[in-house]
Amino acid sequence: MRADMLTAVLHDLNGTSADIEASGVISTDGLMMAAVLPATLDEDRVGAMSAAMLSLGDRSAKELERGTLEQVLIKGDHGYVLMTYAGDEAVLTVMAKPNAKLGLIFLDVKRAAESIASML
Amino acid sequence: MRADMLTAVLHDLNGTSADIEASGVISTDGLMMAAVLPATLDEDRVGAMSAAMLSLGDRSAKELERGTLEQVLIKGDHGYVLMTYAGDEAVLTVMAKPNAKLGLIFLDVKRAAESIASML
Repeated sequence: MRADMLTAVLHDLNGTSADIEASGVISTDGLMMAAVLPATLDEDRVGAMSAAMLSLGDRSAKELERGTLEQVLIKGDHGYVLMTYAGDEAVLTVMAKPNAKLGLIFLDVKRAAESIASML
Repeated sequence: MRADMLTAVLHDLNGTSADIEASGVISTDGLMMAAVLPATLDEDRVGAMSAAMLSLGDRSAKELERGTLEQVLIKGDHGYVLMTYAGDEAVLTVMAKPNAKLGLIFLDVKRAAESIASML
């Protein structure tokens, strides 16, 4: 089943680094396709915030001459949210700890996004 | 004059790397305080998009348990937009080329943001 394959990719991704706390695959209209989240994070909330950030990110990238949106990264004092397009229909959202090694996270997330795009 | 001091910091910042194409200091309500932008980029547009992204970034950071927002990074296929708080009242927005070395940009922007915060 496709949902199981997506969930397996997310489990692998969360397992590549102790810095990754949660991940989800969300349709570009904000509906959750698969998620591996801690109990404290609500699926609908992750979906809704991801869709809103991507929509505004799309517009910002265009208005500020940055071309087609590929990623949005949010850094708070308690950690990161990284949203990456996985093909045209879906977005991979990952939450990571404040001291995460961003270079490794970018690499692992890029690979996972490619893998997810090939399944959809 | 304070506006001249801010502009001088932005000129220095744009000069640290050929990858930085534009920068501006914007109040958290979206009004431009100082800017060093190419003629193709409109000040009001940069201010408005920065304020909108930060407002939604603030909310996303809180809803997704990432604490207080510090930075938002947008990656498009034609380059980056990096928004960083410079104190509580202002934001430093920087636009960089697609192949920019992010590690260096983060470092230079962090220093410039600290310098700007000390002036406001």
